[in-house]
Amino acid sequence: MTVANSMQSLSTTAQADDIAVREVRKLVLDCCRQHGGGHGGSAIGMAPLAVALWKYVMRYNSSSPNWFDRDRFVLSNGHAAILLYSMLHVTGHANFTMENMKGYGSPKWKGYETSCFAHPEIEFDGIEITTGPLGQGIANSVGMAIASKQLAATYNKPGFPLIQSKIYCATGDGCLMEGVAIEAMAVAGNMRLDNLIILYDHNAVTCDGPLEWIVSEDVNAKVQAMGWRTIDVFDGDTSVSSIVNAIRLAKTYTGKPTLINIRTTIGYSTTKAGTAAAHHGTFTDADLVSCVGEKSRPTHYVIPEVYEYFTETQQEGTLLEQEWKATLQSYSYKYPAEYRELTERISGKLEYQEIISSIQVPTTLTAAREINGYIYNQLFESIPQMFIGGADLWGANKLGRADHSIFEHSNFSGRVVRYGIREHAMAAISNGIAAYQPGVFIPSDATFLMFYLYAAPGVRMGALNELQVIHVATHDSFQEGQNGPTHQPVEVDSLFRAMPNFQFIRPSDAEEILGAWTIALREPKKSSLISVARDSQVHKPYNTCRVKAANGGYVVKENLDAVVTLISCGSELGYTLRAATVLDSEAIPTRVVSMPCISVFESQSAEYQAEVLGSATRIISVEPYVPTVWARFCTASIGMKSFGYSASGPSNYDRFGIDEKGIVRKVTAYVKGGDKLLKKWILLE
Amino acid sequence: MTVANSMQSLSTTAQADDIAVREVRKLVLDCCRQHGGGHGGSAIGMAPLAVALWKYVMRYNSSSPNWFDRDRFVLSNGHAAILLYSMLHVTGHANFTMENMKGYGSPKWKGYETSCFAHPEIEFDGIEITTGPLGQGIANSVGMAIASKQLAATYNKPGFPLIQSKIYCATGDGCLMEGVAIEAMAVAGNMRLDNLIILYDHNAVTCDGPLEWIVSEDVNAKVQAMGWRTIDVFDGDTSVSSIVNAIRLAKTYTGKPTLINIRTTIGYSTTKAGTAAAHHGTFTDADLVSCVGEKSRPTHYVIPEVYEYFTETQQEGTLLEQEWKATLQSYSYKYPAEYRELTERISGKLEYQEIISSIQVPTTLTAAREINGYIYNQLFESIPQMFIGGADLWGANKLGRADHSIFEHSNFSGRVVRYGIREHAMAAISNGIAAYQPGVFIPSDATFLMFYLYAAPGVRMGALNELQVIHVATHDSFQEGQNGPTHQPVEVDSLFRAMPNFQFIRPSDAEEILGAWTIALREPKKSSLISVARDSQVHKPYNTCRVKAANGGYVVKENLDAVVTLISCGSELGYTLRAATVLDSEAIPTRVVSMPCISVFESQSAEYQAEVLGSATRIISVEPYVPTVWARFCTASIGMKSFGYSASGPSNYDRFGIDEKGIVRKVTAYVKGGDKLLKKWILLE
Repeated sequence: MTVANSMQSLSTTAQADDIAVREVRKLVLDCCRQHGGGHGGSAIGMAPLAVALWKYVMRYNSSSPNWFDRDRFVLSNGHAAILLYSMLHVTGHANFTMENMKGYGSPKWKGYETSCFAHPEIEFDGIEITTGPLGQGIANSVGMAIASKQLAATYNKPGFPLIQSKIYCATGDGCLMEGVAIEAMAVAGNMRLDNLIILYDHNAVTCDGPLEWIVSEDVNAKVQAMGWRTIDVFDGDTSVSSIVNAIRLAKTYTGKPTLINIRTTIGYSTTKAGTAAAHHGTFTDADLVSCVGEKSRPTHYVIPEVYEYFTETQQEGTLLEQEWKATLQSYSYKYPAEYRELTERISGKLEYQEIISSIQVPTTLTAAREINGYIYNQLFESIPQMFIGGADLWGANKLGRADHSIFEHSNFSGRVVRYGIREHAMAAISNGIAAYQPGVFIPSDATFLMFYLYAAPGVRMGALNELQVIHVATHDSFQEGQNGPTHQPVEVDSLFRAMPNFQFIRPSDAEEILGAWTIALREPKKSSLISVARDSQVHKPYNTCRVKAANGGYVVKENLDAVVTLISCGSELGYTLRAATVLDSEAIPTRVVSMPCISVFESQSAEYQAEVLGSATRIISVEPYVPTVWARFCTASIGMKSFGYSASGPSNYDRFGIDEKGIVRKVTAYVKGGDKLLKKWILLE
Repeated sequence: MTVANSMQSLSTTAQADDIAVREVRKLVLDCCRQHGGGHGGSAIGMAPLAVALWKYVMRYNSSSPNWFDRDRFVLSNGHAAILLYSMLHVTGHANFTMENMKGYGSPKWKGYETSCFAHPEIEFDGIEITTGPLGQGIANSVGMAIASKQLAATYNKPGFPLIQSKIYCATGDGCLMEGVAIEAMAVAGNMRLDNLIILYDHNAVTCDGPLEWIVSEDVNAKVQAMGWRTIDVFDGDTSVSSIVNAIRLAKTYTGKPTLINIRTTIGYSTTKAGTAAAHHGTFTDADLVSCVGEKSRPTHYVIPEVYEYFTETQQEGTLLEQEWKATLQSYSYKYPAEYRELTERISGKLEYQEIISSIQVPTTLTAAREINGYIYNQLFESIPQMFIGGADLWGANKLGRADHSIFEHSNFSGRVVRYGIREHAMAAISNGIAAYQPGVFIPSDATFLMFYLYAAPGVRMGALNELQVIHVATHDSFQEGQNGPTHQPVEVDSLFRAMPNFQFIRPSDAEEILGAWTIALREPKKSSLISVARDSQVHKPYNTCRVKAANGGYVVKENLDAVVTLISCGSELGYTLRAATVLDSEAIPTRVVSMPCISVFESQSAEYQAEVLGSATRIISVEPYVPTVWARFCTASIGMKSFGYSASGPSNYDRFGIDEKGIVRKVTAYVKGGDKLLKKWILLE
């Protein structure tokens, strides 16, 4: 085993370590100099930390970077990407050849194909997750630690330690200021995730200047207060062995995650050492000389001794995976059911269609959130990949069941997490769970739709990482009423509907909620948000269909003579259908389209879209949000231009004119206003 | 003085205190019972805390709730609003009559006019700021503490302590989990804001259940590590005097903010005491009996002794304001310039037009962020209300000047804050600065546009509170290039452009940046975000105008024969104008509209809008974002449907076809595609 071997030989390798560190620093400098920029300073300071990890600590197989039980490394301070690339290069990862390294920061434009983008990107094997926005990586690593604990508790058996992975996360001073990181660390402390080690590159310099300008806290004490252990390393610039020893100590701790506070110097040994000037930008000849100690060395060249230095690790990695495969083979005989489930999950096999087809929602359930809770739990029972947590509105989200097994320190096999009131960390943790090994988990999280705005940066990173995370929102509009405008989204949908690789789904009833879960479950590389109402609808919609709903949009009320097409979704579909009937009776023939997911509808053929949208001159959306994207399809909209109001749901529908009365009134005025109103999209008032 | 008097009499008033607490609890119960819901549990538990504040601690004048030097109270756990309303009622605030109290939670629908909404709303005198989304209020109170410190350092003179206000913030367990709160507390600790006292209603129960499910941290230790003092109160349910003593102790501390950790019982003395069931919902007759100790008492009735108990406070408040006014009068003789400036700020007088008209931006500045920095600093020098902070991208935002006076613990008169990498808190702190006394400060904050997504919940609350906060973003698109898709917004504009009472402004050059500041400065009740590019434009736009830009949209290139109108803004205006010239030369007559602010454009007359949009059949927006709201005006858009890319700005324009070549190609294909393409809005590719 890597660690055991290294322990024996550590005392004799200090010089080799130093050389490796020096060469990694040189490669970083070379890449920054070629690029003419980049973020070299932290990378240089962190080089000993990285050598410690990749040489002496982490279990990985560079020729098989996706080996299931590898240790995971997350670079939360993603701007130090060039360090990660350098380590993946010297340890022999195929995506990080020297040609790739040369493209750092200048892909394509200067003729390079590269995997060395400014920030690490998940699409390249060897990189666990895309990072960059500060704090996200810490939360991602908490998610990965949860994933590892949960899998170990579920599948490990005596003598079969199939899941042993540890999670290592590097962070700078920046991430530790971000709320998302502190929230996530509080979660990790509460869960006692002792498989998580954060390596804190404490260089005390940020983009704008010295850290003391903006931080005067005792980070160790703060972290300890959240249930972590801390270890100090004071010679982080120069001693690989100090860092290795600290990590080994951390690994002996149980019951708590550990933060290793490693004092380093940004841009160590360069002319900019210890200053904000080292944070980003290029380096001079003088920097190269002072850092590497030699005057002229070819650029983008690493001495063979360094590759040799990591050869043993590569061999050990191959061996580790072989051993693991052998264990898995034996496991398959002794625990065939668990073996099948685990390997199917690893292979990405997911079965949900039959369940979706067969679910019958009891008609006693009428509130959308209750229906959604019922459906979620039916799926949850059948699909072992599903894993969910809530942000202290679990009761109100109606997703809970009395028999849920809670994931907590005394029960890591649970599949339901209590994240506390930490929405941002929750979403970013979900990303980490999904990224642990895409396909193995389909994590969900839940809160009110309004509070997904707190979580939005995490939600975005899930979409950007192409992770199948399914967010579940309830209380999706002013219908929720009593909590007032602070709790009533009117503009949040515009964000999520504009987000690439993201599916914002707003179903109306049981059939459409089943369609919504189809949309979310069938896309292994997209994130989704299913948003449902708090209450039941005053007028029950009809002609809804789980299959058609999965097309994104479909006709629920046809009228071949229609002069008006109304498009709605969610809670307003019932009001809209009711209004259409009234309009029909008042000689304004009206048809109705339900469109629970605009992005899926837009992925349909032009013919299908045209057929659904129909030929009526007036196409009007109905939704209690500020209408933005609807204008793509519509000549006018019924919606909001202000924030909501603190009053009961029905009174809000009345107040803002989005109940059947309001719809009929606005549509009638629009039709009677004649064609001049068709010149330009308008909000009907 | 309130406090002095009370100290003398405290020992004799314990019984009176208990009665006041009991009656406040009864009023809370009455209101929840009438409403059939609400959040009574915390309010009941916090009643002693509230009585302590309003009777013995806070300096306020209930007959003049906006008295300038009052102490500020922020209810961060805004769901406990009924407690705040009850206190404002018993202390005689005009907006909180018993008739108003009866409308708690049921405004209008049941026939009530009320100021007692589910969460406190700023529009009612007596309420300092709207709260509800957890954690915001803590950050708001940090902003108010900054405001008070800054004003005191600026205007107080020996013998003239015009600004003495302290900031009191109540929080529950929930707020303290939120990242925004922890970020803000780190800021307050770093700034040593000893005028800030947080009263922590530590009832150890949240919405879903016992706190231990989700929190296992040592809150005091965590808070101390961030530079705060903490004081424990263990009999918070029953002892007003313990709380008063703790606050008095806190007020003797200097150099640090204080958190008073008050152990309470949610729903104290009711049948639901100490359980999550007390968090929200109504109460029974039995609850009333056990809480108040009496069987039958009229509802919504407070015994006269309680009003009398607070009479002294009311009288003292009037006296305090009279004394303050006398001091201000004397101050006016001795410090006439400071007097004039301060009173003008209090009156909301703001002069900016002349400055805007006169600014000449040096032509050596070409990058939008640099131009914006120059303009900001010209305004900043002339307008004392302006106050700004950055989130550690201050250098990159180009807003800094070497001669800036930094607001820090050694220099509270500074007007530039280093918030650290805490975007969410930054925006929420700005709200607090603005809410201190609207008009006195016009706070700004700054980071990359992408990271305003971290700040978005704070930004939203500023808009909802009708506060004039001006956010400043740079690096507004994939033009910023090298940092890659994690740093490149493509969907964030959709959120901000949909946000009510909010102005998202994306100017292109110096003239338009001056127009943008006009738009932001002229609206005392709106929040704005001015977003500019990192770099200069490849093709300089022309015909831009600071005056016309303030109309939101205007024609920059007319062509009376146009078959195409291109609408653009920001960095793409130059490319668009260049493309229009090429299109003209290729027999596709094209006109160009610059639209830096859609919401302002939509507020113009229909005639103006029609004239600007023109009569060309094809109207096409050009912007490197996922186009949503543009479809209101446009038949097609040139924009994004994916995330950005980690490569140089110019290569990204080429890659995504949004430089002049791409625009010409796409527009030409659209025109040649004939009228059938006009059936429905499309994204040109």
